[in-house]
Amino acid sequence: MPDTMPSTSVGLVTPRTETFETPLALACGKELPGFELVYETYGELNADASNAVLVCHALSGHHHAAGYHDLEDRKPGWWDAYIGPGKSIDTRRFFVVCVNNLGGCHGSTGPQSINPATGQNWGPAFPLVTVEDWVHSQAMLADRLGIERFAAIVGGSLGGMQVLQWAITYPDRLANAAVIAATPKLSAQNIAFNEVARQAIRSDPDFHDGWYEQHGTLPKRGLKLARMIGHITYLSEHSMGTRFGRDLRTDSLNYGYDVEFEVESYLRYQGDAFSTRFDANTYLLMTKALDYFDPASLHQGDLSKAMAHTRCPFLIVSFTTDWRFAPARSRELANALLRAKRPVSYANIDSPFGHDAFLLPNDRYEAVFTAFMTRAYHDMTRRAA
Amino acid sequence: MPDTMPSTSVGLVTPRTETFETPLALACGKELPGFELVYETYGELNADASNAVLVCHALSGHHHAAGYHDLEDRKPGWWDAYIGPGKSIDTRRFFVVCVNNLGGCHGSTGPQSINPATGQNWGPAFPLVTVEDWVHSQAMLADRLGIERFAAIVGGSLGGMQVLQWAITYPDRLANAAVIAATPKLSAQNIAFNEVARQAIRSDPDFHDGWYEQHGTLPKRGLKLARMIGHITYLSEHSMGTRFGRDLRTDSLNYGYDVEFEVESYLRYQGDAFSTRFDANTYLLMTKALDYFDPASLHQGDLSKAMAHTRCPFLIVSFTTDWRFAPARSRELANALLRAKRPVSYANIDSPFGHDAFLLPNDRYEAVFTAFMTRAYHDMTRRAA
Repeated sequence: MPDTMPSTSVGLVTPRTETFETPLALACGKELPGFELVYETYGELNADASNAVLVCHALSGHHHAAGYHDLEDRKPGWWDAYIGPGKSIDTRRFFVVCVNNLGGCHGSTGPQSINPATGQNWGPAFPLVTVEDWVHSQAMLADRLGIERFAAIVGGSLGGMQVLQWAITYPDRLANAAVIAATPKLSAQNIAFNEVARQAIRSDPDFHDGWYEQHGTLPKRGLKLARMIGHITYLSEHSMGTRFGRDLRTDSLNYGYDVEFEVESYLRYQGDAFSTRFDANTYLLMTKALDYFDPASLHQGDLSKAMAHTRCPFLIVSFTTDWRFAPARSRELANALLRAKRPVSYANIDSPFGHDAFLLPNDRYEAVFTAFMTRAYHDMTRRAA
Repeated sequence: MPDTMPSTSVGLVTPRTETFETPLALACGKELPGFELVYETYGELNADASNAVLVCHALSGHHHAAGYHDLEDRKPGWWDAYIGPGKSIDTRRFFVVCVNNLGGCHGSTGPQSINPATGQNWGPAFPLVTVEDWVHSQAMLADRLGIERFAAIVGGSLGGMQVLQWAITYPDRLANAAVIAATPKLSAQNIAFNEVARQAIRSDPDFHDGWYEQHGTLPKRGLKLARMIGHITYLSEHSMGTRFGRDLRTDSLNYGYDVEFEVESYLRYQGDAFSTRFDANTYLLMTKALDYFDPASLHQGDLSKAMAHTRCPFLIVSFTTDWRFAPARSRELANALLRAKRPVSYANIDSPFGHDAFLLPNDRYEAVFTAFMTRAYHDMTRRAA
């Protein structure tokens, strides 16, 4: 944490847990016999519960989107740049909710939780959950919190896909949708990268078909490789070039396999850190949720038909150097919404930082995002009046 | 092989081996105490040995560039589309030489060869060889074959880098240079992909620090992952999309980790096949040779200075959808040659097939390549007259 809490921070926050005893029917056909969701909230829910904003997290994200858990925390939540007093999602106006998704490894029910049928952790037996399942479970949490309709639902990357699914599944339960650095479906290349990551994890001898906890091991090698691959796709070629170039860590070439180039050092460090902090079974199922997401597939591939019954205005944001989910994917979505005669704004933000740009400070992105949320706020107060 | 040998094929070919007893000083400072090179030739060397063309291979390539080894072969050599009677490199005109590079795993001295100092295979103790080392050893082979000066030296990808190095190291020993789908140096992103591939191999428990032969194992898992990553970078996003899209191998989603999407099946198949056919130590050192290549680094990063003392005309070819070594890299090279006032032609060929395009039939690429080689032939005959 900084020495003094900045006035634009939501400050110290504490996660909460809701327990759901009713079974949840999943898209895969299986049923989850009750579950827990860990979530955080920032700001105050107003009297008519009309000012709630749901923030959806991405592949390796979680419920800790803003503020600090502890005075010793080195970093705030993952989207602190955009959530707080006076920020794009202004917590003086909005009551923000962020949930760790089902299947996650940060407290919500997932592979590390106890399977009541066996008394052991679920491990690889945890059912594959989809973006639709997440949205269902988030809606159950909203019910529990007394939120009938969100003033906005927002998210980047895989989080943006959840926003899309909300607009499709519960068109009356959100007043605005912000879909950032996302795509209406993964490309073959996206699936290919996910598949290499999965193979890296699943072929690690310490993976034991997912029962590593029972074997007292962790598939660190596989998870490290998966994260290294991920990182390459999160950064732009340009930002990697500017940040690392061909700079050497050593005075000269060492003609061996120790770290030589700065970019090698960065990737190894990121991979190592991730390999002990994230659960491999969760990583696997999250990549599958990404692969499966394709709302147009229920409409013979016509995305505009998938979006036809949505009812809220959309903000679509892409970043010029994002090659994971390139601007063309966001344009495809914006065009589908236009064809469906749905209200949509689209901004392609100039940034050198690739896919990661959705997490980083950027004046123009902030201006676009703030304007959209300000309009959401004024719509909300107008409706209340 | 086809039922009848096509008239445009060089036909049945047999590799030959040259043995060099003199030690070879390597860029890393070590010395190789003698070595063997396996190579193939197609066509006939003319009386004054002026019609030789050296073909340099890429990362996973070898000396078998054209024709068939056996009547049962399912496929011809890797560049058969461009080498043969009437093809771009016309074997009625030229005597073509293609060498398996030092450190390779197809017959030339490499990690699988016997280290005379130990009587065991070199394994990971085989010194890291560089593009410069390859060029030196290729020049020694040329001496042995009585070739003082090549009519042309040509290559794609890592092969193109060897062509560049030839033009720098031995400016008087080649009359023409064709550098295809190459780059004057790897970017941070290129190095990053290589590093993930290396980590995949080196973290495979069956790798045993490179002594897998001694342990009776093969680091198949790692090599498979390395190849899968490689394949993603060889194909364009577009060609992956057209070829595989989101097509399923199964009737419906199986909500598990067996193969579901066609692209997963393709990558696993390619990875598995490669993991038993290629040597892991060779793969590692080839990626290092790629990382290290940077002729401009000896001239404070000024590529035009590196190219200033070259003496031959250059053909530079790139492919529009190649994102491994993008057209911008080829333009960088062409511009450096122009600044150095060297003769250069540059063609950016329209192809949907990404980096792999340099291996595939393409009318325009063939026309450009053929025109360059025809001019090389006429120059050669004019000089002889």
